[in-house]
This record gives sequence, C-alpha cells and structure tokens, in this order.
Amino acid sequence: MSKEKKVEQITDMEQDFGQWFTDVVIRAELIAYSGAKGFFVLRPYGYAIWENMQAMLDRRFKELGHENVSMPLLIPESLLQMEKDHVDGFAPECAWVTFGGSEELEERLCIRPTSEVLFCDHWAQVVKSWRDLPKLYNQWCSVLRWEKSTRPFLRHREFLWQEGHTLHATAEEALEETEQMLEVYAELYEDYLAMPVIRGRKTEKEKFAGAERTYAVECMMHDKKALQAGTSHYFGDGFAKAFNIAFSDKNNVLTAPFETSWGLSTRSIGGIIMTHGDNNGLSLPPRIAPVQAVVIPIAAHKEGVLEKAGELTERLKAVGVRVKCDTSDQSPGWKFAENEMKGVPLRIEIGPKDIENNQCIAARRDTGDKLPISLSELEETVNKLLEDIQKDMFKRAKENLITNTRAAKSIDEAKDIMAKHGGFIETMWCGKLECEEKMKEDVGVSSRCIPFEQKNIGSTCAICSDTADTMVVWGVAY
Amino acid sequence: MSKEKKVEQITDMEQDFGQWFTDVVIRAELIAYSGAKGFFVLRPYGYAIWENMQAMLDRRFKELGHENVSMPLLIPESLLQMEKDHVDGFAPECAWVTFGGSEELEERLCIRPTSEVLFCDHWAQVVKSWRDLPKLYNQWCSVLRWEKSTRPFLRHREFLWQEGHTLHATAEEALEETEQMLEVYAELYEDYLAMPVIRGRKTEKEKFAGAERTYAVECMMHDKKALQAGTSHYFGDGFAKAFNIAFSDKNNVLTAPFETSWGLSTRSIGGIIMTHGDNNGLSLPPRIAPVQAVVIPIAAHKEGVLEKAGELTERLKAVGVRVKCDTSDQSPGWKFAENEMKGVPLRIEIGPKDIENNQCIAARRDTGDKLPISLSELEETVNKLLEDIQKDMFKRAKENLITNTRAAKSIDEAKDIMAKHGGFIETMWCGKLECEEKMKEDVGVSSRCIPFEQKNIGSTCAICSDTADTMVVWGVAY
Repeated sequence: MSKEKKVEQITDMEQDFGQWFTDVVIRAELIAYSGAKGFFVLRPYGYAIWENMQAMLDRRFKELGHENVSMPLLIPESLLQMEKDHVDGFAPECAWVTFGGSEELEERLCIRPTSEVLFCDHWAQVVKSWRDLPKLYNQWCSVLRWEKSTRPFLRHREFLWQEGHTLHATAEEALEETEQMLEVYAELYEDYLAMPVIRGRKTEKEKFAGAERTYAVECMMHDKKALQAGTSHYFGDGFAKAFNIAFSDKNNVLTAPFETSWGLSTRSIGGIIMTHGDNNGLSLPPRIAPVQAVVIPIAAHKEGVLEKAGELTERLKAVGVRVKCDTSDQSPGWKFAENEMKGVPLRIEIGPKDIENNQCIAARRDTGDKLPISLSELEETVNKLLEDIQKDMFKRAKENLITNTRAAKSIDEAKDIMAKHGGFIETMWCGKLECEEKMKEDVGVSSRCIPFEQKNIGSTCAICSDTADTMVVWGVAY
Repeated sequence: MSKEKKVEQITDMEQDFGQWFTDVVIRAELIAYSGAKGFFVLRPYGYAIWENMQAMLDRRFKELGHENVSMPLLIPESLLQMEKDHVDGFAPECAWVTFGGSEELEERLCIRPTSEVLFCDHWAQVVKSWRDLPKLYNQWCSVLRWEKSTRPFLRHREFLWQEGHTLHATAEEALEETEQMLEVYAELYEDYLAMPVIRGRKTEKEKFAGAERTYAVECMMHDKKALQAGTSHYFGDGFAKAFNIAFSDKNNVLTAPFETSWGLSTRSIGGIIMTHGDNNGLSLPPRIAPVQAVVIPIAAHKEGVLEKAGELTERLKAVGVRVKCDTSDQSPGWKFAENEMKGVPLRIEIGPKDIENNQCIAARRDTGDKLPISLSELEETVNKLLEDIQKDMFKRAKENLITNTRAAKSIDEAKDIMAKHGGFIETMWCGKLECEEKMKEDVGVSSRCIPFEQKNIGSTCAICSDTADTMVVWGVAY
C-alpha cells in the first residue's frame, strides 16, 4: 500500500480504527448524517457502489428464476404477532405508526423490520395448488430497526437491502435454495468485492428469530474483527403453518409448504471500506467501483493535453471501462489525493512529456505502483491492470484472513490468542449453549459460524472437554 | 379490438368501468390487497412492468447527468414545518411514527409523503460553493399519503415512485430542468407506454404545495376521464431560503440556489390499463410488456411440436424478444385466454400442421388479427409485428384523445358537451380562481392544465367573458 499520507483530514487507522472508518465514510462522500438519529443519506458515490452490487445480484437472482415484487412498508401489529419466535425477536426494535393524518389508528402499524410475515400473509391468499409453487420472490427496499447505538453502514435504524423470500413444495428444495443463495452472496463478496468469506451455519443461539437454520457468510475486517456479511434462512414449514399457507399437492392432499429467506444490505459497503481501505482513504475493487479509472491531465494549459486526456477517456469508455476525465480547475496534486480518497482503482496521468513519448502513466490505488503505458496498448493494458488489481486485492484480504485465524485446543489458549493477536479462533465445540456463553464471558468472542469446510483440529470441546465433532469459528463481531 | 369475450371473471367495461378496472388488476395478477387498507402488494407481473419503466427512466436520467441517492424514510416534524405552504399541503396526510421499540419519541417523525425537505436539509449541509452545483439527484423509493379512499394503482396510501430533486445556480437553468424532465416523462408515455399526453402548466389552484410552477403531462383514459401522469415543479429559491441553502458564486457572493423536483409513480400502470385494456383484460404495449410474445404449442403431445415451440422461443430470444414458451399442462384455449388477460402483445401458435407448412400462426392481442408467419422469416416478422402493435396502440389512443376533446365558448356549451360526450373541454380562461371554481361547480370539471401548445379558439373567457389569452383543458380527473 502507498505509505505517504496524502490527505490530512482522516485519522490513521492504527491510531483509532473507528474514527478512521467514520472519516473515510464522510470524506469519500459515501454517506451524510441526517436530522434523525440512525438515519443516513446515501450520497451518489455510496449509492453508485450499491447499484453495482444490485446489478450483479439482481442478474443472478433472475438467472436463478426469482422475480421482484414490492410488499407494503407497514405491518399491522396483529400480523407481526402470528409467529411467536419471530415477534419476540423483532418487536423490541420496531418503529410504530400510531397516527394517520390527525386520526389515531385503531391498530398500530410497525414499519417492516423484515418482511417474512407480509410474504406469508400474501401467500396465504394466493397459493392454492402445487402449480403455484415454487414462489421465488425478491424485494429491494429499506427496513427499520430501532437500534440504540448507530454507526454509518454498520448499524443504521434504516438500511437498504434486498430480501429474498421463497416457498417450496418440499423441505429438500427449500434447503437447497437456502444454500444456493448463500453461495450467490459468497460469489458477490469473493468475485466482485474481493472479500474472502467463510461460509457456514449459525449456532442455535445466533440464528434468525423464527428460523430452523441460518447460514451466513462471515468476513474479516482490517482490524481483524468479524463482519456478518449476508444470511440465508431455512424456516421449515413453521411460518406456513402459523399463517395457514397450504397447497393441494398432485394427489390432492392439502400440505404446508417450506420457506426460506435471505438478505444482504448496504452493510456490505462498510465491509469493503474496512477490508480494503488504508490511511489515504477508500480503495475500491475495480469490479464494484463506480469509477474504475480517472484520467488526470498534467499541465492541462499546455497545447494538446486536454484533448489527449479526452481522447484516452473516450478510448477507454469504448471498451467498457468506467472512466472519467478530471478536467476541474484544481491542481493535479489535489486531484491525486481526492481520487485516492475516493478509492478509484487506477489513475492515469497524461502530460506534454508523456504525449511526446506516446505514453501515459498509470498509478495503482492499491499498491501505489506507477508505470508507463504505451498509448498504442492503452486498452489492453488498462483492462489487464484492473484485473490484476481485483485479484491482488482479494489475495491480500485472503492473506489477512488466513494469517489471523488460529486454532485453539483450550479456553486458555483461546484467551492467549485473543490477547496477543485478536482475529478469528477455530475450536472444536460440543454444541452446548453454556460453552458458547463461556467463550463470550471468558474470551470475549462469539460464535461466528460452523464452517461448511470443517478442519480436523481435534475431537474434544475446547471449553468443556466433552466429545465434539463440530468446529466453530469465533471472533469479535461488528 | 377482439370482440368475443374470452374470460368470464371480468366485468364488461361498458357495464361498470371501475369494476372492470379492479377485475383486470386482480385477475392479471398485477396487484393483491394486503392487511392494511390502501397498502398493496405489487406482484411479479405488475412489478416487472414497473421495472421496464424504471430501466427507461433511469437510463434517461443518467444520460442527462442525474445521480441516484437514498434519503431517509422519516422526517422529524420540525423539519417538515420549515416551508409553510409545503407543510400545509402535506401534514394532513402524513403517517406519524411516535414509538421506537417501547420508548415514546420526544419528537414524532412522519413517513415521507415526498422528500423536498430531506433534500434541502442535506443540501444545506453540503452545498457551499458554485463548484458544488448543479446537484442533479434522483431517488427510487416509496412514499406515504394517508388518503381516505384508496384504489389499486390510482390512489394508494403507499406508492412506488421516483422523485428527482435538483439544485441550480440560476433560475433559468432550474426552469430548463423542470421543462426537460417533463419532456422525459412525455417520452416515456408516448414512445414506451403508447399513451399520448398533453404537456402543460398547472393553474395556481392545482399546483404542488410550495412550488412556483407545476408542469404536468395529462392523459385521457378509455372512459374519457383524465389521469395526471407525471409532474415537474419549479420552486424558485423559496425552499433554499427557508432551509438556509447558500453558495458562494464565482465572485464570492453568497447566493440562494434554485430548485426543482419531479415525480412519476406506479399510477402510470393504472394509466396503461385504462388506456389499452379491453373486456378480455390487459393489453400491453410491446416496449413495456414483461412478456412480448408467448409461444403456445398446439397438440403438444404430437411428435416434434414441443421441440419446435422451444426452437422458435430460442430463436426469438436470440434477437432480443422477451418471449416465453407456455409448456404448462393446461389446454391451448386456457392458455389463449390467460395470455390475453395478461395483455401479452403477441401470441404465436405452433402445431403439427403449421410445422408441415413451415409456418406458425401469430395473433395480435390489440386487434385479434391472426396471420401465418413463414418460419424462415420468423425473427423479422415478429419484430415488425411488435413495432406495428406499438404504433397502432398509440394511434388508437391518440384518436380517442382527439375525438373526445372539444372546444367550448361558454359555460353552457361546456355543460352540454359534458352531458352528451364527457371527455376533455378546451376553453379560453381569464386566469381568475373564481372562474376555475365555477367550472367545477357548474360543469363538474377541473382544470387539467394550460397546454404548452395553445390553440386559437377565441379571446374571451368562456366563464366570465372577460378578455382571456390562455387556453385551458378541463376534465374529470382520477
């Protein structure tokens, strides 16, 4: 990473990681605070990152047969109460509408914290026969959760997300869907956001309110803390029964269908920042960057420079690079710092001398490396560089994850690792809640997930020494 | 239009237009009712129409330099009150959040009925210099208005829309933006939804709360009533001053900028239904139809039929036609009726005899016309047919508008026209509110707009006979 500090307005991450994060979020113009606590403005640059994620996910959802819908924003209190575990989980953080105009409502309505009950209520109306299944629905919207403490991207009272909700004739099909959609999330993170994930199942304690199983993808941030980056839930037929959803199967027998839901939010943008950012600001993986390359004319007043910069920009646009030419009246130094702050993956400088030498200078945001590019090979070289940056960013994040994940055989060893290194700890676990709680109390970590990819690290629970055949990953979570 | 009635579940429009509309909305699976009055589920087929509109508008907005953002859902009451005309217009129909979890809020928050004040509040924070202008923002979201009576698509308590909000250094630039965005709406309606519009300016009485000027596009429905189909507002610098938004201009003088907003909602889908639908259901213009053509195998059990149907489908997909093959186990007759109900513009039948003759049969949804297509010319013919359908649908709607728009020189003549024909009335108008109110009382019509395209139909107000140089279009509005 580039070592010299270019922008004075942000705190060093080594000094105060939390303040560094907030500084980047504000200075890179991703988010602004609003008049209501926990409600944020997603500014054009932040929203454009979200749109790029939306484009990828929406395409994949549709390829896999899903359809978009729009459910109501408000949920009558009686509807929310129909599934007991679910309401217990969500009611404490609901925002309640009690007045419409000047009229007090007979029944108060909550702003959706998630939409399971709305989908169920709808399906109870429209699902009658096996011909109506599966229902593979998705919704792009915002939801509200009345959190006590809030933080840009990581904990909003209102956040943007997608929530998929599906209904299936068999448990097998629903379980397959749950796993498939987790894999789509993993694909988004690894292939687009350059963030390696651990795919796994949540423990009983950590699963979603009302779910039989919750799967998650978990990432490690630059400060070695964990970010739960997307979840996929299998509900069995519990919700269907609570909401009287039933279909006649091919033998004309009335049967309860099986349900899933899965969601991914703008929290992922917080993950990008904390995975790839540095003390000069944001650093964006090319596949998700709103601007992949910025062309900066040097000595722009000299004859032919602006024209040449415009020409390079057009050539790159023509081959599909998201490029802009910074022709503002600021100095090149200011432009360098500003585009670094905003995490533009590639900077292309072009000045009179470069023109003479039929070249331009490319500077990588991720490494700070500068190299000349022959103008005759501009398109190929830039595309190649963007691919290299994408791969290298993933590789560095993966190294961070591997280096900072350590196996522990006992609770003392786990304590020792956390004190010395932080990061993730792998242990065997017997499955008991009390051992999970003891890890939290004694070591300060929670179970992140039971990875699909289990390693052979022992046969006894690191906490109670009982026989154990499950490996858990533990960490301090955002 | 096809005359014989195919589906029994919908009321004839001649018998009860309102019931016909509701029947189509429900039977074509565009919308479902939800547990909360005035809140609707936009089902996949309805949402897919909206997505096609979004794609066109979003592309145009971006081509014209706009950026998407996301503003908070909730507005503190004190913020809503900062612009007097605006709060007077909207406060009576706000939904109020008074509790977060179990805690009563110190200040109640309203769910946005529109977001002018949120944009202003944000701009007051971030706009400082002429370099920060213009701000060309758009938001895709839902808004809430606590309407007393509600109706699918036409009057929801919650509806999906886009709201553009822009801020400019000069009044001229803001006015240009206001007009430009109205023209984008006109383009959507005329070129995509096959709905001719009247572009015009709203009277003082009918303009948006807080605006200096409101422009609108107005359409005529099949029952000759008017639908306000999109609006674009010019605010002058009133909001900027109320919210203390100011920028240093190039001479370093602190100046209030000028603002616009413009919005278009899912109401437009109601417009499509009431413009093009018939007694067999929905009829969709090809450019906006989620499915442009449906291939239906005839005698699907016969050898080679299903394969051929699949082959035609793939050939059409390959040239960009949104096509599906209906291979369900229903009868062809059922499929015909169902796809007509859903307004699929073109049906393609293929059976053993057709295969023998190297042809298929195309049936137009709009006219009911059937014609054979040589399989060697499938792609060109289908694309040509879809274009023809699009043009013909626009032409018929335009004829409806022209035929049912009549000039009146006096209030008696206007009454007579409304009694005999309904539709739109053009009159000269002096500009006085009392004349506008008299038209409402005596004739039952409201001013739809002052068309940009004025006609020479006289020089005195049809109501009071004073001198008048403005032509107004009047009608009964949804």
